[in-house]
Amino acid sequence: MSGLADVLARLDERAEDSLSELIEFASIPSVSAQPAHKPDMERAAGWLSDRLKRAGLTTVELWPTAGHVAVYAEYLDSGENAPTLLVYGHYDVQPPDPLEKWHTPPFTPTVNGERIYGRGVSDDKGPLLLTVQVVDAYLSALGQLPLNLKFLFEGEEEVGSAHLNELVAQNAQRLKADFVLSADGGMWSAETPSLTVSARGLAALELTVRGPAKDLHSGRHGGSVHNPLHALASLIAGLHDEAGRVTVPGFYDGVSELTSQQRGDIASLPFNDDAYLTQTGAPAVYGEAGYSTLERQWHRPTLEVNGLWGGYTGEGSKTVLPGEAHAKITCRLVPGQEPERIAELLRGHLEDKLPPGVTLEIHPSDHGARAYRLPADHPGAAVAREVLAELYGVAPLDVGMGGSIPVLETFQSVLGLDTVFFSFAVGDEDIHAPNEFFRIPRLYEGQRAWAQFWWRLGEKHT
Amino acid sequence: MSGLADVLARLDERAEDSLSELIEFASIPSVSAQPAHKPDMERAAGWLSDRLKRAGLTTVELWPTAGHVAVYAEYLDSGENAPTLLVYGHYDVQPPDPLEKWHTPPFTPTVNGERIYGRGVSDDKGPLLLTVQVVDAYLSALGQLPLNLKFLFEGEEEVGSAHLNELVAQNAQRLKADFVLSADGGMWSAETPSLTVSARGLAALELTVRGPAKDLHSGRHGGSVHNPLHALASLIAGLHDEAGRVTVPGFYDGVSELTSQQRGDIASLPFNDDAYLTQTGAPAVYGEAGYSTLERQWHRPTLEVNGLWGGYTGEGSKTVLPGEAHAKITCRLVPGQEPERIAELLRGHLEDKLPPGVTLEIHPSDHGARAYRLPADHPGAAVAREVLAELYGVAPLDVGMGGSIPVLETFQSVLGLDTVFFSFAVGDEDIHAPNEFFRIPRLYEGQRAWAQFWWRLGEKHT
Repeated sequence: MSGLADVLARLDERAEDSLSELIEFASIPSVSAQPAHKPDMERAAGWLSDRLKRAGLTTVELWPTAGHVAVYAEYLDSGENAPTLLVYGHYDVQPPDPLEKWHTPPFTPTVNGERIYGRGVSDDKGPLLLTVQVVDAYLSALGQLPLNLKFLFEGEEEVGSAHLNELVAQNAQRLKADFVLSADGGMWSAETPSLTVSARGLAALELTVRGPAKDLHSGRHGGSVHNPLHALASLIAGLHDEAGRVTVPGFYDGVSELTSQQRGDIASLPFNDDAYLTQTGAPAVYGEAGYSTLERQWHRPTLEVNGLWGGYTGEGSKTVLPGEAHAKITCRLVPGQEPERIAELLRGHLEDKLPPGVTLEIHPSDHGARAYRLPADHPGAAVAREVLAELYGVAPLDVGMGGSIPVLETFQSVLGLDTVFFSFAVGDEDIHAPNEFFRIPRLYEGQRAWAQFWWRLGEKHT
Repeated sequence: MSGLADVLARLDERAEDSLSELIEFASIPSVSAQPAHKPDMERAAGWLSDRLKRAGLTTVELWPTAGHVAVYAEYLDSGENAPTLLVYGHYDVQPPDPLEKWHTPPFTPTVNGERIYGRGVSDDKGPLLLTVQVVDAYLSALGQLPLNLKFLFEGEEEVGSAHLNELVAQNAQRLKADFVLSADGGMWSAETPSLTVSARGLAALELTVRGPAKDLHSGRHGGSVHNPLHALASLIAGLHDEAGRVTVPGFYDGVSELTSQQRGDIASLPFNDDAYLTQTGAPAVYGEAGYSTLERQWHRPTLEVNGLWGGYTGEGSKTVLPGEAHAKITCRLVPGQEPERIAELLRGHLEDKLPPGVTLEIHPSDHGARAYRLPADHPGAAVAREVLAELYGVAPLDVGMGGSIPVLETFQSVLGLDTVFFSFAVGDEDIHAPNEFFRIPRLYEGQRAWAQFWWRLGEKHT
């Protein structure tokens, strides 16, 4: 076996190809939430599977689920005594709505300076694809990899990884590994390397408030039957108190207060609200009283309305008293909160608080995940810290993650594996929003980092 | 001059043509609220103008406005001593949304038994068109009309008649008449003839609540900046108290309490809440405490949200914390309330109650109208009562109207004219909602009634 330098040189030679491949991959509108994109989902899985084969992997499989297919590949030639990593990522992307806010078409990935714009380039196609490109560089430069690798790329992350639990359970033997190295996640800022050591969980539901059986003329009928939009607004408004706390009884049961160690660590991070407001464009920070912004994002549970609609929403005016009003709600959870229980508490509370004159229908969601914390002394975290320190010349920060990766819970509960986040996406890249972008230098930094991570982990073994 | 019987016979002969013409007229999607339909608005105005000419009227004019064109026609051959009526109607229609709730295409008028379905057939194309058909019958059967007639058919009723005030003022001399006979309005029930003696006024505004400059990931950012949907829900929820009263300070200033006479008259009407709930499909009546359903609809002001939206409203799930949330609001007014003042009070109240962490933008509307009451002893009302009593064999009821016709205020304030509603639409015909319909027998009853109304008013003069 020749050296890591050869692998890195090979990656350098192929820099342009690496970017072209990302453009090709991100051109496929693999929107898992929308049934119309089912064929695109299949196309994206096929593309990824072909790319894994071209990288030199001989075992590449499509694993069907009741939802979208997962792509699996493995390299076990390093033998039983070598470390084995399970690499995780997802090839599905968020819906591109609202389309009119994109400056370039979401599925025509567009390079502008050091950025590439397009739906999914940061979450998670860029970070995922670079791991495959590193395999390719190893196998073409050295003919082998320094450890055993298993790849599991799912197609349902953006819709809650509903079928992955089952799939992982069915394939538990084949998926055995020392730990999971996740290409999904994202770093905290573009300036400072970071290692994500926690993620919030998720509970979701959708509700419909119904009044009259059909839309009525708001002049003729206004004031004599309850308007579902008023009733829904009142339900939603009642979910938070004036201190920004969620009012659902039992919501905070089991949630631990932050330790003074945690508060101290967070306070010492290079973060300030002014910069955060500049980044987000929000006029002020706002949230649960008694917590700082990062404490709120990483350690406190929340309830957010993701969508609310009813009545006439088009141009001009339509004097209608609508028959229905709708809302989509998700809660972000912290350790101690069970997704199913939170959804049940929320359902019960909404039913209790339903105003008169309307009915309520609650649609449960299979979109749920427990919160996750990486053990402080995890050996994979140690390697990640070394690689990042070397690459960026500064020790990485330990940070939390406000978002959720349901599969973390699956890997923990079904396989007993911890997950080390090793993504080179950055948290400001407008994922889940218009004009999502990925920093092109991060594609190359990510490749180097993954190549080094594998090399070091292999070295520790030999 | 031969007799009224000849006119009625002519209308009978042409019954099929009358319906075919309505189908043709209602096929034109003259949606005044949507700029994309501007050419259809022009097409509808042209169609109507042609129809008036075919009826035998020689003075037919298109009156441009800064918005949509109005159609004017006149017949003054009965001489200066004959009564002169100004006939009002509108050829524009509501947007057809939500399209998916229509059982037949909104602009393919479809006959099913005694009903014709289509956007605008009841509001106001059927009731308007029949007046032109009566002119045609008179002129072809008798060669003359028993009185002078002026027709003003506008194209902006569904968007608040914004430019009609100006147009009427500019043409005040030509529009002089004894009173207005309105083809818009609608009867109270299909079983009992009624005469509408009041209409509520209107004040409208649209608001946008802004938080972050762009949509954010609700996992990453949830709980640390204010969600505009939460802020909007809280604003909307705060607009009514638990007794169903509008909380805007000053909203009820100048509003008279119902007299015991009014309450008694309403209580004696053949109306009950159970039948009303069956008709609307609402689970319960709901409104300002201390008033019955008809009292609420006819004599109490209201505030209704007509549309509310923000965030992800598509299929599946998208964990977004949206940058904006929107609402469209209209108030229905009673005598004593000025539309501009109510809009100002509402604006001030919303600004006062704005939660922290978001900004508010209020878009004023030129969609405003004062409430209207017809004098109890109006001579046009007397003729209408006689005609209706003869046609239906029972004395008509005096009823109120929850909706608004801004032009009433224009006719009153600019021309000093009262308006007698003489429409043969019925209040349950799903105007402003999917599956709007018009009762075909009402087309023919309306023709007879208008023919008789004109005859009687002419007779009173001779």
